[in-house]
Amino acid sequence: MQPFAPSGVPSRGRFTLPTEAGKDDLVLDLAAKWGADTIRDSDGTELSPSLTALGFDIFSTVLLTRADQEFVRAHPEFLIRKFFRSDPVTAESDTVVLVPMSGFDARKYRIDTLNDPATWWEVHDRSTGNKVPGSQWQFDAAAGTVTVSGIEPWHQYTVNFLVEQIWDSTSMHNHLTNGWTCDPIMSVDPWHPACYEHLMRWFDRWLEEHRATTVVRLTTLCYHFPIDSGADGKTRYFDGQGYADTVSIPALLEFEKIHGYRPTSEDFVDEGYYRNTHRVPTPRLREWMEHIHRFVVRFGRDLTDRIHGAGKKAAIFWGDHWIGMEPYLPSFQDMGIDIHINACEGGVVARRCGEAPGHQVKELRLYPYLFPDTFNDHGGQPLHDSQLFWANVRRGLLRAPVDRIGYGGYLSLADRFPEFVSQVTGLAQEFRTLIEVTKSTRSWRVPVKVGILNAWGACRSWIPMEGRDQKFAVPYSENMFLLARSYLLECLAGLPVDVAFLSFDEVIAHGIPGDLDVLINDGDAGTAQSGGHYWLQPEVVAAVRKFVHQGGGFIGVREPSAQAAMGRVFQLADVLGVDQELGQSPSQRPVAEWQENRDHFILGGEVLDLNFGVTHSYVAPVEPGVQVLATAPGGHVLASARDCGPGRAVYFAGLPATLDNYRVLLRSLVWVSRKEESLAQWFASNPKTECAWYPEVGKLVVVNNSPDAQVTTVLDGDGRAFEVSLAPYASAWFSPEN
Amino acid sequence: MQPFAPSGVPSRGRFTLPTEAGKDDLVLDLAAKWGADTIRDSDGTELSPSLTALGFDIFSTVLLTRADQEFVRAHPEFLIRKFFRSDPVTAESDTVVLVPMSGFDARKYRIDTLNDPATWWEVHDRSTGNKVPGSQWQFDAAAGTVTVSGIEPWHQYTVNFLVEQIWDSTSMHNHLTNGWTCDPIMSVDPWHPACYEHLMRWFDRWLEEHRATTVVRLTTLCYHFPIDSGADGKTRYFDGQGYADTVSIPALLEFEKIHGYRPTSEDFVDEGYYRNTHRVPTPRLREWMEHIHRFVVRFGRDLTDRIHGAGKKAAIFWGDHWIGMEPYLPSFQDMGIDIHINACEGGVVARRCGEAPGHQVKELRLYPYLFPDTFNDHGGQPLHDSQLFWANVRRGLLRAPVDRIGYGGYLSLADRFPEFVSQVTGLAQEFRTLIEVTKSTRSWRVPVKVGILNAWGACRSWIPMEGRDQKFAVPYSENMFLLARSYLLECLAGLPVDVAFLSFDEVIAHGIPGDLDVLINDGDAGTAQSGGHYWLQPEVVAAVRKFVHQGGGFIGVREPSAQAAMGRVFQLADVLGVDQELGQSPSQRPVAEWQENRDHFILGGEVLDLNFGVTHSYVAPVEPGVQVLATAPGGHVLASARDCGPGRAVYFAGLPATLDNYRVLLRSLVWVSRKEESLAQWFASNPKTECAWYPEVGKLVVVNNSPDAQVTTVLDGDGRAFEVSLAPYASAWFSPEN
Repeated sequence: MQPFAPSGVPSRGRFTLPTEAGKDDLVLDLAAKWGADTIRDSDGTELSPSLTALGFDIFSTVLLTRADQEFVRAHPEFLIRKFFRSDPVTAESDTVVLVPMSGFDARKYRIDTLNDPATWWEVHDRSTGNKVPGSQWQFDAAAGTVTVSGIEPWHQYTVNFLVEQIWDSTSMHNHLTNGWTCDPIMSVDPWHPACYEHLMRWFDRWLEEHRATTVVRLTTLCYHFPIDSGADGKTRYFDGQGYADTVSIPALLEFEKIHGYRPTSEDFVDEGYYRNTHRVPTPRLREWMEHIHRFVVRFGRDLTDRIHGAGKKAAIFWGDHWIGMEPYLPSFQDMGIDIHINACEGGVVARRCGEAPGHQVKELRLYPYLFPDTFNDHGGQPLHDSQLFWANVRRGLLRAPVDRIGYGGYLSLADRFPEFVSQVTGLAQEFRTLIEVTKSTRSWRVPVKVGILNAWGACRSWIPMEGRDQKFAVPYSENMFLLARSYLLECLAGLPVDVAFLSFDEVIAHGIPGDLDVLINDGDAGTAQSGGHYWLQPEVVAAVRKFVHQGGGFIGVREPSAQAAMGRVFQLADVLGVDQELGQSPSQRPVAEWQENRDHFILGGEVLDLNFGVTHSYVAPVEPGVQVLATAPGGHVLASARDCGPGRAVYFAGLPATLDNYRVLLRSLVWVSRKEESLAQWFASNPKTECAWYPEVGKLVVVNNSPDAQVTTVLDGDGRAFEVSLAPYASAWFSPEN
Repeated sequence: MQPFAPSGVPSRGRFTLPTEAGKDDLVLDLAAKWGADTIRDSDGTELSPSLTALGFDIFSTVLLTRADQEFVRAHPEFLIRKFFRSDPVTAESDTVVLVPMSGFDARKYRIDTLNDPATWWEVHDRSTGNKVPGSQWQFDAAAGTVTVSGIEPWHQYTVNFLVEQIWDSTSMHNHLTNGWTCDPIMSVDPWHPACYEHLMRWFDRWLEEHRATTVVRLTTLCYHFPIDSGADGKTRYFDGQGYADTVSIPALLEFEKIHGYRPTSEDFVDEGYYRNTHRVPTPRLREWMEHIHRFVVRFGRDLTDRIHGAGKKAAIFWGDHWIGMEPYLPSFQDMGIDIHINACEGGVVARRCGEAPGHQVKELRLYPYLFPDTFNDHGGQPLHDSQLFWANVRRGLLRAPVDRIGYGGYLSLADRFPEFVSQVTGLAQEFRTLIEVTKSTRSWRVPVKVGILNAWGACRSWIPMEGRDQKFAVPYSENMFLLARSYLLECLAGLPVDVAFLSFDEVIAHGIPGDLDVLINDGDAGTAQSGGHYWLQPEVVAAVRKFVHQGGGFIGVREPSAQAAMGRVFQLADVLGVDQELGQSPSQRPVAEWQENRDHFILGGEVLDLNFGVTHSYVAPVEPGVQVLATAPGGHVLASARDCGPGRAVYFAGLPATLDNYRVLLRSLVWVSRKEESLAQWFASNPKTECAWYPEVGKLVVVNNSPDAQVTTVLDGDGRAFEVSLAPYASAWFSPEN
């Protein structure tokens, strides 16, 4: 291979710049430095006429459900609602008084007295799980209390109650985090036909008023993801993918007509877990999601039809009010979206965006956002963060390219950090070079197709779930991806393998797809990621067992196939060769004979720093012949590997996103599928580096993912080695010898 | 207080010495040094006639069920039996062949073909939990295989099968560990009437032949605790309290007549967990235990009647074949035992023995046993171990004295370690001094009565259950008690508090006893110690909640009240103020407001080195006002405290047995019961030291539990302070000023 210097790459294009009111010179300066071809008004700003005249493509943001505050104030019946569970209260006698709003932010929520509490609310004895009959409780609207009588002393009681949301979550966030001082904004629920009609009329008018706009950026559609605020204004619950804020009375009534049952408050409240994305989804949640999705698609289509009718393009942002869009479901395509934007800080989102189905233009809104949380003089490190994020984003782009990048926030903040400005100049050009040189073609893969097996499957493709470590995140210093015990998806996002997301329901219905070489199950026991009760369905266990016994590979991480029953914790302990001890039989050692093998292929090559994210896995060998690759003091197994007939299985106690773990995972994937030889080509020896070969254009790029200079030995397609030296975070292009 | 030098304490007595064949001089030498008044034959040795003539009390060991090997060989139908579950095998078609004995030691177990497999065995599909109908499987005795047909491919199958035990567990242990070379010994099942009769006749003869014997040491009675040996001869399962080796066909048939149902093989096999003591006991297990206990008491009584008839005393050893004795059950007293012996390495067993109900003479068999596992030249540290064990045993004795101590094993091994011999000389005299000075009276307590709440209650008093850490024990260097995340009982054993053991069933039936000040729940989630499903019984949660709300104290350790349901993991999260995150809602922070308070009373005084045994508790504050005393990186709560109305609650992620934790627990007990002022008397400030005041004799002893010299400030009964200096592990006596 010969070094290749890409030439003729334009220094402008594929870049969206936010604008800032009254800073036209700065906008023009940074647009030139970063090569912006498009400018946009950020949330809360408007483009100045002098800028709109300068020949940029113009993205204009519209936030329809929170656009017309006058209308909201006139129609509180259209406010978006939600169900809360009050904090449990101990009954000290046979009567207890609950104060539903206690613990919730009264600036954001107001008890809904329009819809009859007797119809919509529920009181529960949370010590038995039983619902308290309506005859035993009464709501006093004036006092804001619920009195429950005829109950058991020393049990705990809650009321599920309905609130109106009187402050939009994003608006509140901007007030509290970014110092906004405008009036709190409220959002409406477009499911009310009169509200829907008003929004469409408002939007028609808006389109007429924005003739210079070339792209309408819908930020976003109908329903926000839940950010519940406590009495202290702080977040008490958060779910980036959750449907807890889709509570709409007309939607509930319509659902009842279709499905024959009406979801109860408890369906949403879910014991206080609010059916969050980490929970194994129930059939009732899935039905509700479909119901909301169908509506959101219709709403979105009504908007895009209008946008296209006005000769403009429609962009959608995967954030804020995105709930119900479901970009990985086929019907998302019915919405007619042209440009698909994701906020992105690493490989997972880059790959999620790049691989999202459909022919939309894909755009990444890069981190750090130009906001005061990073761009400040008290510890913010814009340059450091941007370098780190970009290195991870780039990994994803090598496997799944997108079309555009951009930023959001305040240019005046960025302008105070010239090293950051300069670094973005570089990464913007690096991005344009990648896309122009490769012509967005597909990079070479090792011949291993990976299936991520969880309860969600495709509709939650590339949604990271760090699991319970998320609550105990150590503030990051060097690498935000190191927060969690396992961030396997981030490791995987940059690897040269094809990845599919597979749900247990699909396995039950159709078995394991024939094109998969490796199945991965990674998660905390009992969660949607690990699978919980699905592992007690014999069809699931039998399907995976058959897959492995017939030559497939299985990689289990954290608590794979975990659901304690029938003498096992890991239901696939027989396949993995290891099982977890929960304290049911700590003096049981079912199998004594096993080998310790630190020289295993998986830990081979130049891998140096092993980190499995945990010391106490409580996992021990249980099948003969399992090879233990790493342990913690006491014999906690951290990594193991096993032949299982013609198939193979690997276990990791955790897999934090470290550069070495990117390599450990790649080696595991080829080992477990018996394709070790595939690392003899298009491979960079140094785990701090990676490479991507683009066969359709005959070009190779080698990247340094680390903040230090690196030397790496690269193998070409014939296995011939050559050495490459790379500056920190640098990349270099090569093409075959003539 | 004035130093007090005990005088007139005899230098002989309260000490039982093992003998060794052909080493009479050594026996006499050590008997003199250690002040032995009693000699005994150890398992496998016989007393020499020259020794029996020397005026010692003579303990003679009889191991009745393994005494007459000729009889066993003639009557294999009387061999003790047990049920095993074969290791699970994956069916690769609709037929699978199981080899029951695969993985088990054929020297120890033999398939029982006398009792019809069709009647007694069971085959299970362990992927569904279902039993396979008898028509679908067949046992081939010649091949030693079970063929199962008409089954589901890729499920796993097991057979529960019956074996005869052809090598007694203790005999095998002595062969493998202590190099014994005699023939393997077999044990019989005395439940067979003809066997019972034979044993009684044999025993009558034995009594006649042992006229010099003054005490018959029954080592022990009918049924051994389970030590299952794998094909490699190593232990694959162990349960010091388990009933898995009480499988007796006549006992099963008799049980059926009484209870109307016959326990199945699966009752014993229990999915492969063999109903071990860490599991929450089932009603069927309890019924079986009572059935066995009734028989063992009758058997024991038949022996003690004969012993007393021969003018001798009866001693029992809590070990080996002790299963069914149940010394903490009232009917144990019906057995007529005179001397009660426990093998003891720390405070827990010392206190278990000292507080065992009944007026038996209590004797501790001290560790280290004089066996080659410690008395060797390759790393064994007899002196170190003995000092450490004695310091812990002594703690227990300060709160619950016993009458005698002694050793087991080979004197010739001890003789090679003169420092050990000298140290035992000292501890024997220290023991005699303690008993003589205090006249075995009760030492002063702080006015706090503690109830240990678990699924077993009193019948498993002072049985330590380290939980799942037991499987991952790090080889000890300094302190064997540091192995486990929590060894709360060892901390508690030496504290000046009264302790009762309380079962959930008792709480359900009778509520919390009125004399308790503090309840402790300490264990891994789902185990007998924590309580598992009992925490979903509203009566249990309500009773504890009421107890605390009315002024009681609650201390939860490890995973207290843990059983995920109804929006909680810790069902008493409302009382504790903290809850555990299992991954169901990692972005939920129900309560933000809490205080960090490292200056809390509980961590006050001279406590220095905090060690809560774990870094990842996954426990976070959930109630307002909870005080967090210690956290690990990420915010994992390791210790917290909370006012709960007039009551108080404390949480510890773990409580390993460290000297500082002894103190932390004491401070917690008085804090949680609002009796902090009780530490203003009879208190030694330095946590490496403790003291005990004996009001009935007006004497105070101060002990140094550490291997270093210590200075400590001691408060007398009026709170007056005086300083005490103590050599390593030393003790010192004081009496009030004249």
